[in-house]
Amino acid sequence: MVSIRLEPIGKVFKADDGNLLEILRQAGVSIRSDCGGKGICGKCKIVIVEANATFSEISEAERKNLTEEEIKSGYRLACQTTISGKSATIFIPKESKAEVRKISDLYREAKIELKPAIRKFFVKLQKPTLADNSPDYERLTRIFGEFEIPLELLRKLPKKLREADWEITATFWKNTLIDIEKGKSEECYGLAVDIGSSKIVCHLVDINSGKTVAKGYEENPQVAYGEDIVSRVTYASKSPENLKKLQKAVVDAINGIIAKLCKDAKVEKERIYEAMVVGNAVMHHLFFGIEPKYISVSPFTPAIRKGVSFSAKEIGLDICKQGVVSSLPLIAGFVGADAVANIAITGVHKEDKLSMVIDIGTNTEIILGNKDRLLACSTPSGPAFEGAHMAYGIKAVSGAIDSVRIVEGNVEYSTIDNEKPKGICGTGMIDLVAELYKNGFINRYGKFKEKESDRIIFSPTPRFVVARAEETEFGKPITVSEKDINEFLLAKAAIKAGWMLLMRKMGIDESKLEKIYLAGSFGRYINVENAKLIGLLPNIPPEKIDYAGDTAVGGAKMALLSLDVRDEMEKVVQKVEYVELSVEKDFHSVFIRAIPI
Amino acid sequence: MVSIRLEPIGKVFKADDGNLLEILRQAGVSIRSDCGGKGICGKCKIVIVEANATFSEISEAERKNLTEEEIKSGYRLACQTTISGKSATIFIPKESKAEVRKISDLYREAKIELKPAIRKFFVKLQKPTLADNSPDYERLTRIFGEFEIPLELLRKLPKKLREADWEITATFWKNTLIDIEKGKSEECYGLAVDIGSSKIVCHLVDINSGKTVAKGYEENPQVAYGEDIVSRVTYASKSPENLKKLQKAVVDAINGIIAKLCKDAKVEKERIYEAMVVGNAVMHHLFFGIEPKYISVSPFTPAIRKGVSFSAKEIGLDICKQGVVSSLPLIAGFVGADAVANIAITGVHKEDKLSMVIDIGTNTEIILGNKDRLLACSTPSGPAFEGAHMAYGIKAVSGAIDSVRIVEGNVEYSTIDNEKPKGICGTGMIDLVAELYKNGFINRYGKFKEKESDRIIFSPTPRFVVARAEETEFGKPITVSEKDINEFLLAKAAIKAGWMLLMRKMGIDESKLEKIYLAGSFGRYINVENAKLIGLLPNIPPEKIDYAGDTAVGGAKMALLSLDVRDEMEKVVQKVEYVELSVEKDFHSVFIRAIPI
Repeated sequence: MVSIRLEPIGKVFKADDGNLLEILRQAGVSIRSDCGGKGICGKCKIVIVEANATFSEISEAERKNLTEEEIKSGYRLACQTTISGKSATIFIPKESKAEVRKISDLYREAKIELKPAIRKFFVKLQKPTLADNSPDYERLTRIFGEFEIPLELLRKLPKKLREADWEITATFWKNTLIDIEKGKSEECYGLAVDIGSSKIVCHLVDINSGKTVAKGYEENPQVAYGEDIVSRVTYASKSPENLKKLQKAVVDAINGIIAKLCKDAKVEKERIYEAMVVGNAVMHHLFFGIEPKYISVSPFTPAIRKGVSFSAKEIGLDICKQGVVSSLPLIAGFVGADAVANIAITGVHKEDKLSMVIDIGTNTEIILGNKDRLLACSTPSGPAFEGAHMAYGIKAVSGAIDSVRIVEGNVEYSTIDNEKPKGICGTGMIDLVAELYKNGFINRYGKFKEKESDRIIFSPTPRFVVARAEETEFGKPITVSEKDINEFLLAKAAIKAGWMLLMRKMGIDESKLEKIYLAGSFGRYINVENAKLIGLLPNIPPEKIDYAGDTAVGGAKMALLSLDVRDEMEKVVQKVEYVELSVEKDFHSVFIRAIPI
Repeated sequence: MVSIRLEPIGKVFKADDGNLLEILRQAGVSIRSDCGGKGICGKCKIVIVEANATFSEISEAERKNLTEEEIKSGYRLACQTTISGKSATIFIPKESKAEVRKISDLYREAKIELKPAIRKFFVKLQKPTLADNSPDYERLTRIFGEFEIPLELLRKLPKKLREADWEITATFWKNTLIDIEKGKSEECYGLAVDIGSSKIVCHLVDINSGKTVAKGYEENPQVAYGEDIVSRVTYASKSPENLKKLQKAVVDAINGIIAKLCKDAKVEKERIYEAMVVGNAVMHHLFFGIEPKYISVSPFTPAIRKGVSFSAKEIGLDICKQGVVSSLPLIAGFVGADAVANIAITGVHKEDKLSMVIDIGTNTEIILGNKDRLLACSTPSGPAFEGAHMAYGIKAVSGAIDSVRIVEGNVEYSTIDNEKPKGICGTGMIDLVAELYKNGFINRYGKFKEKESDRIIFSPTPRFVVARAEETEFGKPITVSEKDINEFLLAKAAIKAGWMLLMRKMGIDESKLEKIYLAGSFGRYINVENAKLIGLLPNIPPEKIDYAGDTAVGGAKMALLSLDVRDEMEKVVQKVEYVELSVEKDFHSVFIRAIPI
């Protein structure tokens, strides 16, 4: 056993001898490792400050990824380094920390019959003779019937057929021939893509088996052009060049993921024939390069709702030359293809029982219904949940307090990556507000009660100390004020008003609600009991609440694998009644009543 | 009556007072006049050298097209000038002469119901509101139903609709939206294109009226890469770059014609929405950039037979950004879309009566049949008819002897543009051989008889003097040898064997043949009686022979204006029985018997 001290966190723990990356991971420390510990990416740099231990020799991979000077200063790649001995102090440079919480792997893999748009056929064609000199295309129609063919492929068709000596594998996307390979080729892949406003998640899917063979994610580089969606739309709408820049940024990021996934899974990019993309309406428009301006201004109108398919080449996606990029349909300007993916994977549109899907994010999308009727709405919850208006609110990044318990007046909390706390994120706030209420610190309206506790400071304004100065990264206490709690309760009220209005429109109350699916990463980490207590979620028994996990990419994968799912979703979006909350007559009164705990 | 002397030709003739361009045309003098006599192109410059006559005042159009100095020197535009008086000597500058025989204007304008692929609709859309914020595309489907939309246009759709304040003209190609204009726009044009191996002919067609508003032609610049088709295929097949070069050459030439036609007719290029292209299989493949190699080697297989439609942008054609380029289908490697156009315009596929369409060119395509059955074949006649293997054979250019009569032992001939003779072209050879035979100079096999005439030279080899040394441009006699006549009879035999075999396959003889359509420019200038005499055409009464004229571009225009015609032609090419002469058992014996006059 080695005793390891991590700096600058100051965390001390014991570990078995072994690989440092493994040791750090097991200790819950998020370290960047894009290549998955193969010594390729060079991202898992650490510095050995002092040690009473022995380390493995500097490897070839380390020499490639570290400078002479770094090596002299004690830099290593964690993935390349094994440790054995008594103790070591290890410094983790800022750039080696994985700042974004890792994507949640969990999602329901709905059982579907494979019926992909992409099909591959190996055929032996009759060679032309003087007695039978039908053109090449017509020769193929003898087997395949009439089909479409892109000009680019038609141009090369004669050569390809003859070079293959008329034994070819033909790849079709629906009824369009998109590739001709020499001889027999069965490898057939697709890409499921969820473009989130902060994260892009891709699954490389084997079309033959329906299995994900590799997955990866990348921060959405559009963040550089605006943290929130509205500022990206504003940027993109300023000029066609700006729009192109944002389009290229996201496409480049996906191409980067594709390259990595193909390498990991040993798949050729040319064997990826279709990408199925989901995302909210703005992400969708920006990805395809469609003017997004009018989504973000009243009356919030996207350019198109139905699912589209365009050539990968036109979009710039680095897959098979004649490959296709498709999207699931949208429901409305603020209920995007990601919400449709949520419907696909939860199957709410096919069930008798009344279910609700809640995807809490920058916008919270809520779907309510069953096979007979579906309602959808969107509420802007993001800023509060992402801590925008709170003194110590932060996103779900390393060091964010993500869960809180108050036990006998003492605060117990956890932080992401077990770092020293830097602030409090959405899931932490849910817990905190619920715990403050349960423990009699605040009333239903979030006002502090007169209560004896050294955690409460009443001047200059009433605040509750979540983490004391000595515990935090920056040496000052992390506090929550009445104003913060109020902001949070308003955001909660927006969501609650959303599902209350949907339930009222449906003519039901909580007792009739048979299921809640919590979609998205946020839902994955929520304390459901606390969420119910504060009124963020309808009050139904816990066994009726399901963490659906990363549903968006899962729904994209379903659509990738099944044309039936796509058809189903086109029908669903026709059927969904989109409820524009801002025009609902009694929205305001419902909202007001939704504020208290 | 004015007596006019033309220089440098030296021709003198009498004409009624009137417009000079008209007078020159009636006298058979080919003068350039690209704008059709509107005073726009400035191509019909002439010089009035001396005159005992009065001319119209210098017009505005002449001041625009002529320099001060030219006007002082007596230059006029023929189209702008009327003459009345006794006599005039007029000089025709070289640049005003039409060097390539002008395209034949004559073609049957078959009556068709307008049913174009392109349709324009002016619509006022409901503006989106919060209560009705359907996406833009779906808003359009309320009027048009589901339709396709290219990504490029979808990208701009939101802006275009709002800039037009929701009052737009939508242009559809079939079910694809290809353009959105602000407000009401009715202008709607298409382009009919015949890509010949030596000449490209375009008609700019008003889709609303079905009328040609401007036409033009240009030499096919691929000539620079090979006079004959096979050498172009050889060049193109050497590398993808070569193929691209040939593709670009013909596209550039068409773009040049488009620019000119648009200027002449005051039409914006963006208002041309579709181009319908015909041409033989090699021209078709080269235009679309499809590998043409296998058309020219046994078993002569094109890449595709059916009519295709691709985006103008992908091909590089300079019309509406989202415009479409279509082609009529081919029949076989040597019976191309131009032959299909011939069928369309003659209507042989719809009639009870048995008709034959003969299009004499580099290859001669022959169609025989009626609504019940259609046969097609192709024979390589070109080289001989274009004079390739004859000592004084030339193409149908200025100075070519294009008709011949032998009257009482004297030779009377005409030349193209009335220039001094430089050689003899195909139509001239038909006449010459027929006249030599009728006047007892040669026997059925083309051998010179022992006949007293100063026109016959027997040494070193027997030759007939068509034009004496003093008459020709180069001061030497133009003669035709037994070898030349033999070459010509072989070419004739190839054509005759073609239609004989078709007739035999159809089970008919000449007496059952109810119509012959002579297609193409060549057919326009043939002396039918002589052609029948030598066996080039079946021997049927002259009233049953029709000059169909420039049928290819006419057929393209029909297809441009009618989807029904396109459907019809797809069915026709399925039905046509292509007869590959080289595999017909008795082709050789039929051919041998077809040689004698």
